[in-house]
Amino acid sequence: MSKKTDGTTSELVMPARRAFLKAGAAAGGVAAAGALGGHAFAAGDPENQAPNVADWSKYLGEGVDARPYGMPSEFESHVVRRNVEWLTASPESSVNFTPLHELDGIITPNGLCFERHHGGIAEVDPADYQLMINGLVDKPLILTMQDLMRLPRENKIYFLECAANSGMEWRGAQLNGCQFTHGMVHCVMYTGVPLRIILEEAGIKTNAKWIMPEGGDAAAMNRSIPMEKALDDCLIAFKMNGEALRPEQGYPARLVVPGWEGNMWVKWIRRIEVGDEPWHAREETSKYTDLLENGKARRFTWEMDCKSVVTNPSPQAPLQVKGHNILTGLAWSGRGTVDRVDITLDGGKNWRTARIDGPVLPKSLTRFYYEFEWNGEDLLLQSRAIDSTGYIQPTKDQLRAVRGENSIYHNNGIQTWHVQASGEVENVEVS
Amino acid sequence: MSKKTDGTTSELVMPARRAFLKAGAAAGGVAAAGALGGHAFAAGDPENQAPNVADWSKYLGEGVDARPYGMPSEFESHVVRRNVEWLTASPESSVNFTPLHELDGIITPNGLCFERHHGGIAEVDPADYQLMINGLVDKPLILTMQDLMRLPRENKIYFLECAANSGMEWRGAQLNGCQFTHGMVHCVMYTGVPLRIILEEAGIKTNAKWIMPEGGDAAAMNRSIPMEKALDDCLIAFKMNGEALRPEQGYPARLVVPGWEGNMWVKWIRRIEVGDEPWHAREETSKYTDLLENGKARRFTWEMDCKSVVTNPSPQAPLQVKGHNILTGLAWSGRGTVDRVDITLDGGKNWRTARIDGPVLPKSLTRFYYEFEWNGEDLLLQSRAIDSTGYIQPTKDQLRAVRGENSIYHNNGIQTWHVQASGEVENVEVS
Repeated sequence: MSKKTDGTTSELVMPARRAFLKAGAAAGGVAAAGALGGHAFAAGDPENQAPNVADWSKYLGEGVDARPYGMPSEFESHVVRRNVEWLTASPESSVNFTPLHELDGIITPNGLCFERHHGGIAEVDPADYQLMINGLVDKPLILTMQDLMRLPRENKIYFLECAANSGMEWRGAQLNGCQFTHGMVHCVMYTGVPLRIILEEAGIKTNAKWIMPEGGDAAAMNRSIPMEKALDDCLIAFKMNGEALRPEQGYPARLVVPGWEGNMWVKWIRRIEVGDEPWHAREETSKYTDLLENGKARRFTWEMDCKSVVTNPSPQAPLQVKGHNILTGLAWSGRGTVDRVDITLDGGKNWRTARIDGPVLPKSLTRFYYEFEWNGEDLLLQSRAIDSTGYIQPTKDQLRAVRGENSIYHNNGIQTWHVQASGEVENVEVS
Repeated sequence: MSKKTDGTTSELVMPARRAFLKAGAAAGGVAAAGALGGHAFAAGDPENQAPNVADWSKYLGEGVDARPYGMPSEFESHVVRRNVEWLTASPESSVNFTPLHELDGIITPNGLCFERHHGGIAEVDPADYQLMINGLVDKPLILTMQDLMRLPRENKIYFLECAANSGMEWRGAQLNGCQFTHGMVHCVMYTGVPLRIILEEAGIKTNAKWIMPEGGDAAAMNRSIPMEKALDDCLIAFKMNGEALRPEQGYPARLVVPGWEGNMWVKWIRRIEVGDEPWHAREETSKYTDLLENGKARRFTWEMDCKSVVTNPSPQAPLQVKGHNILTGLAWSGRGTVDRVDITLDGGKNWRTARIDGPVLPKSLTRFYYEFEWNGEDLLLQSRAIDSTGYIQPTKDQLRAVRGENSIYHNNGIQTWHVQASGEVENVEVS
């Protein structure tokens, strides 16, 4: 990897080699499709002049009036969010998962951003939307959408990760697929008003130390957030990837708390109370705390630690061919940028540095690649991310040694995929 | 604006002011919604303790199993691509337009990326997809999707603009809305294989100077592209904003020709022929050339010149309230980054510098904002972009002086919106 000062990585610098794709038989025209892919044919062949003309070239396709709002190809109908029915009692207080193994780059398309609700999706009419700022402020406020649109905006790419992402993995390898083990993370470009500007508009009193955002859904989700974070980089966002927030992401406005656990990013936000101490709400006491071995619980563990996962190959995306293959995955840190990602094919005996490509931005997903040859041997794939604070992603056992066996949240341990001779991949744990 | 070396712009640096929103009457609780927006209420009011509880807070919403692939809110049903029926003879060879006035940031969501087809949307099964490389190469190739997925990938955010964007404006102000005057541009993150790697895999002969990409649609769209560009930054892209290309954007694979006119970004790409001279195809002779006053035509005018447009306010997005307002828009250049955007409210008499926010990347859209006070006076809004080569976006009259009156393509002239006392906005031209 070669990170440039403009926040992007360098162009691919590839040695002059031509061995990516093995050539098939050249005689007799186009080679039959082989397991190794890549088919050369003789330059004198008729095919060299007359390209393969497929059926779809022979008739006019759908016109521009067919879909005012476009949708994916019908051949992509397997690329969907999935829930796990046995995981929760009802779909209104549940989760579904982003199909990370089907995606690339660092942007999650809006239709595939995972959902986590505590009272279902509030259906808010933006014409009736109000955001109240009250408590320890000089001038309590109620803002409409029109008011929000008259305040200065920022555009930022941030990941959002649920604190419970990979939570099932505390008890060992369980769910078979990175969609389920790591799919409670997404990353979009937000447009929103810095919360600082709204709080300054209301005027915070000198004893104001905390805020409590509150959701407009049936769960009235609320959390305590220290004023320092509220004034730092939080946003009241109303757009994601250019368009209005999706209903399941808090339409028409949500709180963005960069780098911190998703539960704090209150959706359908209707109120921000300013206070002098935390509220000890249900979601920061009974839930979203980490019970340790000694009976005490960690709380206010807001920042999402540096983490990574190999998305391909993975249980839902087995290896298809022997020879040259590309491994890819995602890394992120709630504390800054991802500086490096290491890859092992043998369960941690040997590590190599992955190539990072695309924007490397703070509190954003980062995409990495690693090229390797595979000849049918068993592999134990792992990725390990290192962030700009020098923090190194730990193993699951290292986490358990510190936190014990009771945890649900904040599992950022190294994930292992076992690639079998068939190319199939399973979720395993190595010690 | 304050551009940092990491390619992002600085955090908002706002003076300590609190005059964005005018306060309504404080006595008697929440002020009635007024034209000026922003409602203060007395701190002792009952509302300060009991927030507005809307209907949608009182019942459970839709659960996570409702939409495996999410869609926008029903309140956003007006945010769609629109076509103009009289503009073309049939929807299969036509265009629709991105609703720029409804978007923010620099990412266009996939469902709203404008469409331009010459034979309708080819419906390509990726299992049967083939990309042929033939002509002046050592080893002609046919690549499947599986082959493409084994080659190194890049992730880049690029704008795509149709050469005919703003084409109707050559004859003076015509279509009333930036969706129609400027909506043939979008901007997404592409994932794809550098074309250079594929051409090196095939081995280009020493006399190879041009490539001809050819589409798999019924139009078999083809163009000539110089080898220097092909080896520079072109991609064979298969993903946009993380997911598979949309059908109307060339699923499963298209050519990306950064900064150059959209017609060259061949969709459903099935073949790349390598040659020693251009092919003089229909779409680079009869079309996509610019007839000058002297009867000669400009051709091979590939690069998209630096351009900008105010997206709000605009004819489809009138001013709603007097007082503090925010103007926003987009700027781009096919030659590099946008260095500066200037705004005038009086048709060019006085110019001020806009604030750029979000990533500033080469050959990408760039978002700008400008805050202003409006008291009901007539305004003549314009934006003027300057790119990293020092090129300054010209007026339409400056363009006509050089190119004459016959042009259709490459209108990057300064756009004027007339804001009337009612807040309504119309497309006008000023000399």
